[in-house]
Formats: sequence, C-alpha cells, structure tokens
Amino acid sequence: MTVRVGVIGAGMIGQDHVRRLTEVVHGAEVTAVTDLDAERAATVAAAVGAWAAADGAELIGLSEVDAVLVTSWGPTHAEHVLAAIAAGKPVFCEKPLATTAEDCLRIVEAEIAYGRRLVQVGFMRRYDAGYRELKRVLDAGEIGTPLMVHCAHRNPTVPESYHSEMAAQDTAVHEIDVLRWLLSDEIVSAQVITPRPTAKRFEHLRDPQIMLFETAAGVRIDLEVFVNCQYGYDIQCETVGETGLARLPEPARLAVRSGDATRVAVPQDWKERFGAAFDVEFQEWIDTLAAGGEPTGPSSWDGYAATVISDAAVEALKSGRVVGVTMKDRPAFYAEGAR
Amino acid sequence: MTVRVGVIGAGMIGQDHVRRLTEVVHGAEVTAVTDLDAERAATVAAAVGAWAAADGAELIGLSEVDAVLVTSWGPTHAEHVLAAIAAGKPVFCEKPLATTAEDCLRIVEAEIAYGRRLVQVGFMRRYDAGYRELKRVLDAGEIGTPLMVHCAHRNPTVPESYHSEMAAQDTAVHEIDVLRWLLSDEIVSAQVITPRPTAKRFEHLRDPQIMLFETAAGVRIDLEVFVNCQYGYDIQCETVGETGLARLPEPARLAVRSGDATRVAVPQDWKERFGAAFDVEFQEWIDTLAAGGEPTGPSSWDGYAATVISDAAVEALKSGRVVGVTMKDRPAFYAEGAR
Amino acid sequence: MTVRVGVIGAGMIGQDHVRRLTEVVHGAEVTAVTDLDAERAATVAAAVGAWAAADGAELIGLSEVDAVLVTSWGPTHAEHVLAAIAAGKPVFCEKPLATTAEDCLRIVEAEIAYGRRLVQVGFMRRYDAGYRELKRVLDAGEIGTPLMVHCAHRNPTVPESYHSEMAAQDTAVHEIDVLRWLLSDEIVSAQVITPRPTAKRFEHLRDPQIMLFETAAGVRIDLEVFVNCQYGYDIQCETVGETGLARLPEPARLAVRSGDATRVAVPQDWKERFGAAFDVEFQEWIDTLAAGGEPTGPSSWDGYAATVISDAAVEALKSGRVVGVTMKDRPAFYAEGAR
Amino acid sequence: MTVRVGVIGAGMIGQDHVRRLTEVVHGAEVTAVTDLDAERAATVAAAVGAWAAADGAELIGLSEVDAVLVTSWGPTHAEHVLAAIAAGKPVFCEKPLATTAEDCLRIVEAEIAYGRRLVQVGFMRRYDAGYRELKRVLDAGEIGTPLMVHCAHRNPTVPESYHSEMAAQDTAVHEIDVLRWLLSDEIVSAQVITPRPTAKRFEHLRDPQIMLFETAAGVRIDLEVFVNCQYGYDIQCETVGETGLARLPEPARLAVRSGDATRVAVPQDWKERFGAAFDVEFQEWIDTLAAGGEPTGPSSWDGYAATVISDAAVEALKSGRVVGVTMKDRPAFYAEGAR
Repeated sequence: MTVRVGVIGAGMIGQDHVRRLTEVVHGAEVTAVTDLDAERAATVAAAVGAWAAADGAELIGLSEVDAVLVTSWGPTHAEHVLAAIAAGKPVFCEKPLATTAEDCLRIVEAEIAYGRRLVQVGFMRRYDAGYRELKRVLDAGEIGTPLMVHCAHRNPTVPESYHSEMAAQDTAVHEIDVLRWLLSDEIVSAQVITPRPTAKRFEHLRDPQIMLFETAAGVRIDLEVFVNCQYGYDIQCETVGETGLARLPEPARLAVRSGDATRVAVPQDWKERFGAAFDVEFQEWIDTLAAGGEPTGPSSWDGYAATVISDAAVEALKSGRVVGVTMKDRPAFYAEGAR
Repeated sequence: MTVRVGVIGAGMIGQDHVRRLTEVVHGAEVTAVTDLDAERAATVAAAVGAWAAADGAELIGLSEVDAVLVTSWGPTHAEHVLAAIAAGKPVFCEKPLATTAEDCLRIVEAEIAYGRRLVQVGFMRRYDAGYRELKRVLDAGEIGTPLMVHCAHRNPTVPESYHSEMAAQDTAVHEIDVLRWLLSDEIVSAQVITPRPTAKRFEHLRDPQIMLFETAAGVRIDLEVFVNCQYGYDIQCETVGETGLARLPEPARLAVRSGDATRVAVPQDWKERFGAAFDVEFQEWIDTLAAGGEPTGPSSWDGYAATVISDAAVEALKSGRVVGVTMKDRPAFYAEGAR
Repeated sequence: MTVRVGVIGAGMIGQDHVRRLTEVVHGAEVTAVTDLDAERAATVAAAVGAWAAADGAELIGLSEVDAVLVTSWGPTHAEHVLAAIAAGKPVFCEKPLATTAEDCLRIVEAEIAYGRRLVQVGFMRRYDAGYRELKRVLDAGEIGTPLMVHCAHRNPTVPESYHSEMAAQDTAVHEIDVLRWLLSDEIVSAQVITPRPTAKRFEHLRDPQIMLFETAAGVRIDLEVFVNCQYGYDIQCETVGETGLARLPEPARLAVRSGDATRVAVPQDWKERFGAAFDVEFQEWIDTLAAGGEPTGPSSWDGYAATVISDAAVEALKSGRVVGVTMKDRPAFYAEGAR
Repeated sequence: MTVRVGVIGAGMIGQDHVRRLTEVVHGAEVTAVTDLDAERAATVAAAVGAWAAADGAELIGLSEVDAVLVTSWGPTHAEHVLAAIAAGKPVFCEKPLATTAEDCLRIVEAEIAYGRRLVQVGFMRRYDAGYRELKRVLDAGEIGTPLMVHCAHRNPTVPESYHSEMAAQDTAVHEIDVLRWLLSDEIVSAQVITPRPTAKRFEHLRDPQIMLFETAAGVRIDLEVFVNCQYGYDIQCETVGETGLARLPEPARLAVRSGDATRVAVPQDWKERFGAAFDVEFQEWIDTLAAGGEPTGPSSWDGYAATVISDAAVEALKSGRVVGVTMKDRPAFYAEGAR
C-alpha cells in the first residue's frame, strides 16, 4: 500500500521532504501540497503531480491524503496537528510540535481522546546510526549506569534572525529529545551558563551558551551550544557510566597527509551530518503507516516535554538561575512500551 | 518513467538486489525473475508480483522487461549479456562479466557493433563514499601525481569451496577495478607473493596472498588478500603521491572506553561495509536508464580488463613470476569521456 | 655545578623523586634525607650515600644542602618552606604549597620580603608535552580567543581515605593550576554539580563531581572529576576558541585489531601518564638553579591561588551555590614576565 | 661507577651523542674525543672537559677510556671497532658496523675469539616505546603467528649526496634490523620494485623504492622507502598475524579543529620521532656496562646480518631480480639467550 502524504508548508524544509518522500522513501507519494504562498504551493505540487490545496484544512480533508506532514511556520503547527487528529489522520510534525507547552498539551489530550497514536514529531537524531549504536551500548549495560553526558552542538554560523532563546528552542531541543530517549529518563531542571561571547556573532546574540540539565535519575548533562564556531557543523556526545564511556563517532572522512599534517574534513552543515538520519526517519514512518501501525517515533508527549524543557532553559538563561522543569505527569497512554 | 527490470538468477545476491530494486531504489520495479531452480524463481517472483520466466531467453524477450539484471552463476553471464545486447536492452551484470577474456571480448564487440553502451558491470566500490572522496582528492591533485597504492582486502573467513585462484578472480577483482578507475590508469603486470599460509584455513587454500601490480604510468600497487583474517571484513586503501597521501576512512563506529582500553568495532561482512554503495550503484543505474541515457558505471571494457588482469594474477600465482597483462587496445568507443 | 638537594619526606613520592634526582635528572645529587620515620630516612639516605637528618630544620641548615625538596605530609609543608626561605635556599614543594590560604600567603610574603623567587610548587602538568603544545597553540592564536574549556580527570579507583573534599583539593587542583597557566587568566568563581554517585565507591565519597569555573575574562570551564571510573587514568582537555578548538592528544598506544574490534590501551595511573612530565619538571628546576637563576615554574603565588580556588570549590560543593573566589591582588613581584 | 667514554668522530651525530652522554644519560662521562679534524675534536673535547686524542688508536688506548663510541665516517668503523676489541674495551658503533660484509665478519670473529660480547650497533628503533610494545604484543601471541609486515619509511627530502643504494644501506637498514628483532626471524631474500619516480628528487636518485623481504619462517615484508615524500618524517609498521594485526602508534600530537578540518601535525625529522629512543638506547648501554655486564642491544652479528641483507637489496635493485641472502650460519655465541 502506498501512503499518500499531504504536505503543509512548502518552504526549504518542506521541499526537501517532498523530494525525500518522492525520490528516496519507498511506499509514499505526495498527493497534496499547501503553503501560505499559493504560487509556491502550486509549483511544488505540480512538480510531483500533486494537488495544490488552498490551506491546511482543505488538505487534511482530502480523501487522497492518508497522512499529513506539517513543515509550516512553527506557530501554525498546533492548528494543523489538531486538525489532523480531528480527522483521524496520522500527522508528522517537524519540531516544534507547538510553540507553547499549552498547545502541546492540547495535542496530547486530543490524541489520548482519539485513543490511538497519530502524531510523530521530527526529531531525526533518534534515526542516526551513531546515536542508535550509542543507545544499544547504553541499554546493553556496556558502560554501566549512566552518570553524566557531555555534549556539544556547534554550527559554523547563524543568520541575523537567530536570537538567544533559539539556542534552547531550536538548537538544544535536539539534544533534549535525543538524551531523554538515550537515557530513558526525564529532565527535571535546567541551568544556563554564559561564557564570554564570541566576537564573531551579531551583537544581539548570546553565543556560546552552556546548558546544564539534570535528570530524574540524577544524570548530569552539560551541553555546549555554539552556533558561530566558524569551522563546521560538529555534534559531540559522550556518555559516562559507572564502568566506562561511549562517544558518538566522528563522521567517516578521508585522511589526507600533506603539507606538514594529517587533515580530516569536518561536515559543514546538518544536511551533510544528518541527511541519512532524515531518510531513515521518513522510511520508518511510512513503513509503520503502510503496515497499519501507530507511529513509533517521538510522540506528542515527547514534543510536549521538549517544549517544556527548552522553555525552562530559556527561563534559566534569562534569570541566571537553576530552573525546575514543571511537567504534567506522563499519561499511561505514553508509557514506554504502552503502545 | 519506471524502469522494469528482469532478474536472471534468484540466489542470495539476486534476492538481495530484488529487495533493493523494490524497497530501496526509486523508479524501478522487478517485473520478471528467472532461475535454474524454477520453484525458487516462482517464489521470488510472486513476492514482488513479477512474472516467473522459464529462462533467460524468455525473460529478455518480454516486453515488460526494459532492463536486465544478471546475477546467475558466473559461467552463464556471457550468454545472458550477449542475448540482452542482441535484444537491445540495457543489462547490469554482476561480476564477472564473463569467466573468460574471450567471452568478455565477444561482449565488447557485440556492444560496439550495437553502437551504444548497454552493459554495466557490478563493481560497487566506485559508489562507496570513501572511494569517491579518494578519487576527488586524486583528481584534484591534492597529493600530487600518484606513485604507489597500498591496499588490503580482508575477510574473516571463507567457505571450503573458496580456492586459491578466487583470491584474484573473486576478491582482488574489486581492487583491480576500483584502482584502474581511481588512477585513470591501466594495469600492465602482476606478481603474486605467497607468505607463510595461515593455519586457520582449509588445507587446499593459499591464504594470504600479496599481489603486486604495475600500471602503465608506473604506479606500483601492493594488495594483501587475506580471506581468513578472523577479526573482520577490513578494506584498506592508501594512495601515495608526490606530495602527500590519502587513506580511505575507517567506517564510523562508536568508541567505547571500558575495561582498560578504548574499543572500536570492525565491520564483519561486505553487506555492513558496502551496503550503502550497492544502494547508490543501483539508484544511479536506474536514474540513468530512466533518463534515457547510456550507463555510466563500469563498462564491458572494464569487465574485460578486470578479467584479463585477474587471469594474469592467477598465472602469476601459479608460475611465481611477473606476468605481463596482454590486453587488446582500448577501443575508442570506451575512451574516457567518449560516451 | 651539581645542585645538592635535601629531601624532606621519604614516603612513596619522596622516594620516587630521590630516584629521579639520582638516576634521571642531570646535575643533581641527593645529599640529605629526613622523614618522621627515622628508620625510613636512614634507609633511603643510605641507598644514595646521603645524610639522614634528624628533621627538616637540621636538613635545611646543612651546608651540603643547596636546595630543598618538600614531599612530606601536606600539613607540614608551610613550616618547611618558610624555613627554607628563612635560610635563603631554593625549595621545591609538592602540592599543596600549604593546606590553608593563610599559610600560603605567609609564604608569599616571606618570599617577597626575601626579594627573590625561591619557591616552586610541584604542578607537573605544565611540563607535559601535550599541555605545552596546547599552550603554544593558544598563545599563537590558532583557535582565536578562548571561550570555554571542557576537561575530565578520571582515576580508576581511590583508596578509602579519599574523601569528597579531596576531589577539589587533591585532584582538580592540577586542572586549576594548568588552566590558569594555559589561559594566562584567573579563576574568579566555582560551582560544583553532583551527578548521581557511582555505586562503585566508598559510601562516604561524592563521586563523580562536575566543577564549573569562570575566569576573569569570562572563560567557562567544566571539569568532570571522576575518581572511580574503573577503566583507567584518563585526562581530557579541550579548549574552544572563537575560531576553532584544540584537544589534548591521547597517549600514543598501539592499535591492535583482533576479535571483532580495534583496541587501544588506556593508561592505568598517573605515573604512566605523567612520568615524563615529572622528569622534565625536575630537570628544568635543577638546570635553573645550577645556572644561578630563580625558578621559573609554578610560584608561591600559583600555590596560593590554587589553594584559594580549591577552597572555593569545596565551599561550592558543601553549599550547592556559586562561590566567588576571594583572592588578594596579585603582587607585582609575581606579575607575568616580572621575574 | 661512572663509565668513561671516548668518542671517535665529532661530527653532527657525534656531538649529539656527546651532549646525550653528558646531559641526559646517567652514569657516563665523555673523557676523550677524536676526529679527523683535530680542531673540531679539540673544541668538542674542551666543552666537556675531555682529552682531544690524536686518533682512534690513541683514544682507545687511554686508561681514562672505559668504553668507545664510534660515530666517524662509515668506512672507518671496522678499524676502530677491531681496535677496541683488541683492547678488550666495549664499543658502541653507529650503523653501519662496517661497510662490507667481510669486515663485519672480521669483527664477529674477533669478538668470538675475545670470548665476550663487547660490541653494540646503533639501531635505535629497538628502544622506541611503540616498537617495544609491538614486540610485546607479538611475543605474547596477541595476534597469532606473524604472516606479513607492511612498512613505510618516509623522509621529507634528502640532500643531493643521497644516492639510490642508500635507500637500502642507510634507510631500510633500520627496518631490516628492527624486523629481524620484532619477528625473532631471519631475512632470506630481497626484491626491489621501482615505482614511477617522484619528480621532486635529484635526477640520479631512484625514489621511491618498494623492498620486499622474505623471512626464514615465510613472513613477507613490504617496505616503502620514500625519501622525498615532502610532508614529513613518517614511519609506519603494521604486523599481520593469524588472528589479528598490530600497528605502530602515530606520535601523540594535538588535534586542532579550525578552518574546515581537524589537523594533526606530522613529525618533520628523525630527531623529533626517535629522540627518546636514542636516550633510552644509550642509558641502557651505560647501565649494562656500569653493572659489568655484556651489552644486550644489537650485536656484531646483527650488524653483519643487516649489512648482508641491505647488500642483497642493493643487488636486487640493480638486477631487478629476487636475490637470496647468503649469510653464514649464526654462531652459537650469538644464539638468542646465549649471552
């Protein structure tokens, strides 16, 4: 069975996912596209023989749409996801699930009311081969009980529109999700430390930032977020347990020995670093839907948790204090192994 | 346009390629399958909704078959490839193109007579990300004119049916092809050195072997072929040029520090090491055919050359001498950039 | 000129330094030894043909002693160092310079009053080849202005006598000194975070600890101190600057590929990791004295600063708060380049 | 007991060893120096308070000389070593022991006639930490029975006086010695393959060369000698055994991530790469003599073997053929463990 996907939002990411669903993923086709910019929607739709819908509501209602992909502007996510749930259609929502915890909760409640998982949130790191191997090692107890995680998330540069709160909401949110999943644990507090800022940034931006998280089990996470590091897109993750440590591998790159040194290139953007993870993420999503199952990736609850925790990090940045994460109790609906 | 592929040979490799064409590659479908074992052909065909043809001749003639994939027993390759050329259908032939240089030449001549490239040979290393980066570095002159290449091809073990000549014909043939391509150069002689054999092999097998090749430009290649190395599937390639060297990267694997050491896993088989290369190889083949182009991968001529060179290596093994490679002049039809 | 050294304290470290001064370092001889345990002093002294002095005071006064090495129990350091200054003799004091900031200050004042540097404190990391290369890279601006430093100090295990405050006073004190030197900067605050403790420790010990330091220039340092990590003695230091990062090299160790992995051994103790640094440290000290110069290594002021900062870290551990470092103004006597 | 060393040959290497014996090694002093250039001898001698002897014969005869170090021009080695044996004095001779196999044999015979080992040859790699660890791993059977060794010896450039035969006699001779020792095996044949020469060399020089050696046990060694590789001084050694492989570590060097790559410096000369090995080599020699023992390092026999084998390599280069090594039977005097 081919899963017919309707895409809400035809910007850069949306177009890349249309390409992915059309040219890479098996078992999917894009049957409808919509965008605030109707002309853009029409162009993107035409290229893959899809219908250009007037808006999200029309798209979700189309009988030719089995599943919905939301890649529109963040503040519109909640509305589309809720509409998809109301229509009983599976919906893949790029992060964030919603821009406020309240909206995330409304989605969680709607999904529980529906009685079946429909929502998957686009945290692609869970599909990266290195992180998956890291989880296997942790789950197998090869380094004992985890105690600490040291992470870094570095981008070469960011555009002027990037502001200080985005370090948590847009950047660290990936680590927040993947660490909750790696550790099978919940983050309960956040603190943000602000080193001397790099001179190589727009004046309004606080960069770098060091985020400190604590989990319910007492694991301590330190995460360097440095979005103007100049030299590349560099993701580091080292987990220290009672009997050993495991470190995410560097991407495989040629070693060239010349001049007076050995030189190994560093990836320059997230597409180079996580392109394969996106492919796996969408293939698994489509495979699950095609088999009639509920999505197994990051859930509404994970989207809610990531928003609450990144909100806490923003508050920690503003206040300079340790901020507790105030999260609802996890509904049984989302308990590990529940679905 | 979907390329409809007929598959001749439904053994392990054939089945894996059927899966690949069906579940991974875009733009292809398997419409016919044949095998000496008719029952096996029927089972494999049924699973993907394809026709189980009685034999290669019938399969090649089917109007539902746009392109042919030959994965049958080596000695039957030539017959099927020639039949495909006679039918004017593109044909992808797993190595070897044919088991004798004479048969390879017949294919070359048939293809030239046809006037258009139809044949691609399954040397997948040209599609591996590491080898491609190595070729980019060489072509860009980053290490100067190449002078030497040091290679190793190691398998953990081989079955009892593997015999000494297969070290050249089945194993080294991959390096032979990829080095001709990497260096844009031709191999002109072969020598084989036989170290003390490992005790961990079947008695009839000479293992390891060290093969020495010389190219027309004077590049010297040493290749360790060791098919019972016990510890893993390990492919090494280091190219030394006038101003530097470049080394194929190790696969990206987690570093785990525990006990008293840091430990990084080694791949255990070719699927783990080259699975992604196979996917790219077939996707590019299908994309080229779908666009109406001639195949751009390893040609009949490359298949002929690999056979002649591996034959020389076998003779070198038997004689203990340096054996010159006696190859026809490369037809203009196959000149670099000709097609 | 041979420098005649008197050694106060003939325990394990003292004996190792006697061996080093006698068998490794050039231009030194050990002419006197003393220890609380007179018999031990006699044995150690006899082995190298030195005089067994009754106590530190006698030893310092001997005309056969040109320079004093203090390796006795920490609480006795101040007394011996002050006595050496009073006698106008150069004195090398193993860390700590003194167990209280007050005593350190008394030494600083005595030295200033004497008018010439006599004291060097035993922080050996400044003599490690890797740290020296790191300092060269930082000073050359190869990674731009430093912004953050990520460190780890891991021991396989510690004895039962090791208590929670020693994580700062005995272990982190090495990073405190070497980072002040690497960055040419001063530490101004400390915070300690306590992850879930490892089960593999004595009950009374808080292990691991994460120490956070801020420097006057705003550099942020995170330091994992984990003294029961089980797998080895592992020192990590990564400095992140505005345009790049530099990481302390792993010790050179053989890579062995067997089983199904590549394995590289991790050092098991500080002697294996820093043995060469100790040799260089003492050779440079002796060379300077032999040439009639003032010691150039870590000064009384550095010893004072390390004590004040580790005291702040201990207070931070106890209070759970960020603790400002209250340090006297650096006397001109100890200004960089002053001496 | 201090060993009083007389140094024959006060050129660059000789001066470096005088410094080493005086400033680094313990238990030695240089009491006499001689050189063809009497003025140079006088200067070097005066600097360390030694006697400037008129010639080797006078120097060897001095009662103030306990042991002789020969670092003069190669063709004079045999004469001085034989004179030292005649005087019953231990003699350390830089490689080569003698420039002809005949002269080496005369030394071997003289030493056997004397009845006690007096001679040590300056092959310093046996004292390098990496090679020693490699030998430990081999001897412990961690990679099973050795089957192959892949080596490379690269220099950035060589002076115009370096000619093609020196690739074997001066450069490969180090690998010849260290491999005989690593494998506890004898080399029985040599072959030399000549890749296309680099353009970055003096016209008269054949560079690079690939040398192939076979041992009595059937181990096959391939050694790339490339003395104008431009980028650095690079020594590689990988030993492949029946169950695994072990590779000499790269020197520990800082990793700097900047620009768009991670960069690790390569050593630029042998002093940077093997300086520590020289120190250990001389310290162990002096320690053995001081204890009244026979030298335990490379023997006269090893010097003879290295000369015979490098002669075979030169003949192989000239003839293009496999050349058998014709060596006398190893005298019981030099049997492993004999002394």
